Amino acid sequence: MSHTVEIISVGTELLLGNVVNLDAQIISQKLSELGLNVYYHTVVGDNPGRLKQAVAIAKGRADILITTGGLGPTCDDLTKQTLAEAFSKKLVFHQDIADELRTWFEKRGHPMTENNLQQAQLPEGCTVFPNDRGTAPGCVFEAEGKHVLMLPGPPSECRNMFEKQAVPYLSALGEGVIVSHTLKIFGMGESAVEDLLREQMNTMTNPTLAPYAKEGECELRLTAKAADTQTAEALLAPAVKQLQELLGDVVYGVDVPNLETAVLDLLHEQGLTLSTAESCTGGLIAKRLTDIPGASASFKGAVVSYCDQVKDSMLAVPAGLLRRQGAVSREVAEAMARGARKYLGSDIALAVTGVAGPGSDERGNPPGRVYIALSAPDMLFVRTMNLSGAPRERVRITAANHALDLARRYLSQKRLEADFR
Amino acid sequence: MSHTVEIISVGTELLLGNVVNLDAQIISQKLSELGLNVYYHTVVGDNPGRLKQAVAIAKGRADILITTGGLGPTCDDLTKQTLAEAFSKKLVFHQDIADELRTWFEKRGHPMTENNLQQAQLPEGCTVFPNDRGTAPGCVFEAEGKHVLMLPGPPSECRNMFEKQAVPYLSALGEGVIVSHTLKIFGMGESAVEDLLREQMNTMTNPTLAPYAKEGECELRLTAKAADTQTAEALLAPAVKQLQELLGDVVYGVDVPNLETAVLDLLHEQGLTLSTAESCTGGLIAKRLTDIPGASASFKGAVVSYCDQVKDSMLAVPAGLLRRQGAVSREVAEAMARGARKYLGSDIALAVTGVAGPGSDERGNPPGRVYIALSAPDMLFVRTMNLSGAPRERVRITAANHALDLARRYLSQKRLEADFR
Repeated sequence: MSHTVEIISVGTELLLGNVVNLDAQIISQKLSELGLNVYYHTVVGDNPGRLKQAVAIAKGRADILITTGGLGPTCDDLTKQTLAEAFSKKLVFHQDIADELRTWFEKRGHPMTENNLQQAQLPEGCTVFPNDRGTAPGCVFEAEGKHVLMLPGPPSECRNMFEKQAVPYLSALGEGVIVSHTLKIFGMGESAVEDLLREQMNTMTNPTLAPYAKEGECELRLTAKAADTQTAEALLAPAVKQLQELLGDVVYGVDVPNLETAVLDLLHEQGLTLSTAESCTGGLIAKRLTDIPGASASFKGAVVSYCDQVKDSMLAVPAGLLRRQGAVSREVAEAMARGARKYLGSDIALAVTGVAGPGSDERGNPPGRVYIALSAPDMLFVRTMNLSGAPRERVRITAANHALDLARRYLSQKRLEADFR
Repeated sequence: MSHTVEIISVGTELLLGNVVNLDAQIISQKLSELGLNVYYHTVVGDNPGRLKQAVAIAKGRADILITTGGLGPTCDDLTKQTLAEAFSKKLVFHQDIADELRTWFEKRGHPMTENNLQQAQLPEGCTVFPNDRGTAPGCVFEAEGKHVLMLPGPPSECRNMFEKQAVPYLSALGEGVIVSHTLKIFGMGESAVEDLLREQMNTMTNPTLAPYAKEGECELRLTAKAADTQTAEALLAPAVKQLQELLGDVVYGVDVPNLETAVLDLLHEQGLTLSTAESCTGGLIAKRLTDIPGASASFKGAVVSYCDQVKDSMLAVPAGLLRRQGAVSREVAEAMARGARKYLGSDIALAVTGVAGPGSDERGNPPGRVYIALSAPDMLFVRTMNLSGAPRERVRITAANHALDLARRYLSQKRLEADFR
C-alpha cells in the first residue's frame, strides 16, 4: 500500500498573505516523483491551540506528516512542542546541538541569546536533521504508525534540508526504488510539448512522463519504478533517447540543473572563455553564470552598460551609432558583443540590449523587445526577441535564457535561430 | 465578535507541486486589511470525497468559507456541487449565464462543448460573481450562519473576481481595519532583535509586534486593529518611532521592499549616481539594482571582473598590486572602487572582492572572506566580512547586502561600520 502525506505549514505570515507557501510546493513536487500521495496541505498560524487541532486532524487522515516552519527561537519552537505532545513524547536537550549553535554564533561574532537554546530541544528518540543553511535543526520520528518530519520555514533552509535529509528517509519508505531523469528544454513551451507528447504521456506507465513549466523554460521528467536502480535505469534509457530524438535541438541537456551550467560545461570541455555585455539584463547573465562554483575557469567577466556613456567608454560602441540607431538596436547589440569580446578578452561574448519595461524606451521600442548578440572568432549572430505583454522580471529572465541558449547552440554546433516571440 | 475565515483551494496541480498557491496569498493579504482573521488554508485535490471532508471541517471552525478552483468544466464543477450539497442546496440552471457562455465562445470562434454548460449551474439563492477574465462564474451564498464564497482557480481570474465582487461583499462583514507597517533591518539578526524586544512583543497588544527572518535580513512588523485607518495609523505612529529610536542605524527603512530600493531612493533624492565593480558577487548587486524599474536614472553600470586581467584592463587595478596583495585584499577592493567610479563615471562606486566558496582561494583566503569598498568624492571606506561556514549562495547574497548597506549608510550620513562577521 502506498503512503499518504499531509503537509502542515506553520506561520502567521502565510495567513496574513505576506508570503506564498513555497515550501509546500517544493516538497509536493518531489513527493509526487517519489510516488507518495499528498492529499492535503494545511496552513495554520503561530497558535498552539489551532496547530494542535490541525495535527489531530492530519493524524486521522495521513500516515506521513511533514511540517514546515515554527522551529525558530522567535516562535518558541511551537511546532516541536505541539507535535511532541500530539504523539506523547518529551522534548530532550541535545548538548551537541547547543554546542554547534554556540560555535555558529561565535563564528559570526554574534552573542548567542538564551532563546536560541530552545533549538537544542528535540522530541525523544527522533533522528536530527542538521540545518546547514540556518540555526534551527529539523527532525523525524516514528510513532503510532505515523512518520513525522519537521522542517524549517525559510524556503532556502527547507528545500536544502528536505532534499538532503528528508528525501533519503522517505525514499526508503516506498517499496523498490524510484529513479527520474529530466530533459531540460528551452525554446518550446509546456503546452507545445504536451501537444507533441500527449499520447506518450497518457499511455506510458513505467517510466511515467510529466512536463513541468519552469521560469521561462520547460522540463520533461521521466520516472521509473523498479526493484533496483539498474532495472530502473534500463527502463529509462530507451525512453530518454527516443524523446531526445523526437524533440531535437530544444533539449539542452538531461539532468542538467540549468542553461548556465550547460554553457559552462561546454566552455570547459572546449577550453574556451566567455564574457557578457549587458544592458537590460543588468548583470543577470553574469550573476547566473557565477552562481555556479568553478565559473571562473571559463567566465572572464561582464560589463553592465546601463547608460550610453558606459557602452561607449567601456565597450567602444560608437557614440554616432548610438545616436543613429538608438541603444536598443541590432547594430548596437553587435557592437556591444564585439567590444566585450575584445576588451574583456574572451573567446566568445554575449551581448543583450532591449527594453525590460514597464515603459517603452524614448524611441518607442516596446517592453519585451530585446536584441541578443553572440560574437565568436568565426561569426557574429543576432537573435531578436519580442515578448510583448510580459512583466519586467519575465523579460529579463527570458532574455538571459535566450543569450545562454545562443552560446549553448553555438558551442554544440546546433542550428542558430534568429527570431523568437 | 470578528469573523474567522478558512480558504479552501481545490486543485490536484497544487498537491503535485506544479503550481504554488498564489490564490490563498492574494486573498489572505486583502482579508487581513479588511480585519477578517484567516485561521486556516486548506488545499485538497480534485476529489469529491476529500473535498467533502475538508468542507465539513471548515464549517466547524470558520464562519466564512472561501474556495478557489474546481469551477471549470474540466473538473465537472466539483466545488459548486460539493459545497451546495454540504449546505443542502440544489444547483439551479441560469439561462442568462448559458447565453453569455455561448457568446463568449462564438466571439472567439470556438465551438462550445456541452460540458461548458455546467458552468451555468449555480447553488439556489446565491449571488452570481461574473467572471470577466474567463468562463467560470463564481458566487456567494449565506446558509447555516456561514458565508460561502466560490472563486475560480487561475490566479488572474481569482484576483480579479475577488477584488471586484468578493471584497465589497466581505467589507460589509468585517468590523474595523488592520494596518501594518514593517521596519526593515540589516545588520542585526532575528534572534538578537527578538531578544532586545522580547518584553515589547509579549506586552504589546495593539499594535502587535512580530519579527520575521528574511534572506540575510530581518523585519519587524507592527500591526494595529482599529475602527478606521486613521485611528490605526495613530496607534502605529508612536510605536514605529519608538522602535526606530531603539534599534537605530540597523533600520534601513519602513515599508521599503528591500535594500536596493532604499539605496536607489536615496540616490534619486540626492541626484547622485552609482556604479559597481564586482568579483565574487559576479553581477548580483547590479542585477538587484536593475530589478527595480527606473534604476537607470541613478545606476550607470558595473564591471564584473571575474579574473585579474579584467580588474587590470577595465578597472585599472595595477597588476603589481594584484601580485603583491592578491585579488582578495583590502587594497584591491579600494582600487576596484576607485576604478569603477572613474571609468564608469559615477558619483559613488561600490566594489566587492572575496571568496564565495566552496573552496578557499590560491592564497588561502577562506570562503566567506570578502572586502567591500565604497568610493565617494569625500571618502574611501572598506568593510570586511567573514562569513565562514556559509554556502556560496549565502556568501554572495550577504556580501551584496553589505555593499548596499554601505551605500545606504553613506547616503544617509549613518555610522559606517568596518567589520562584520
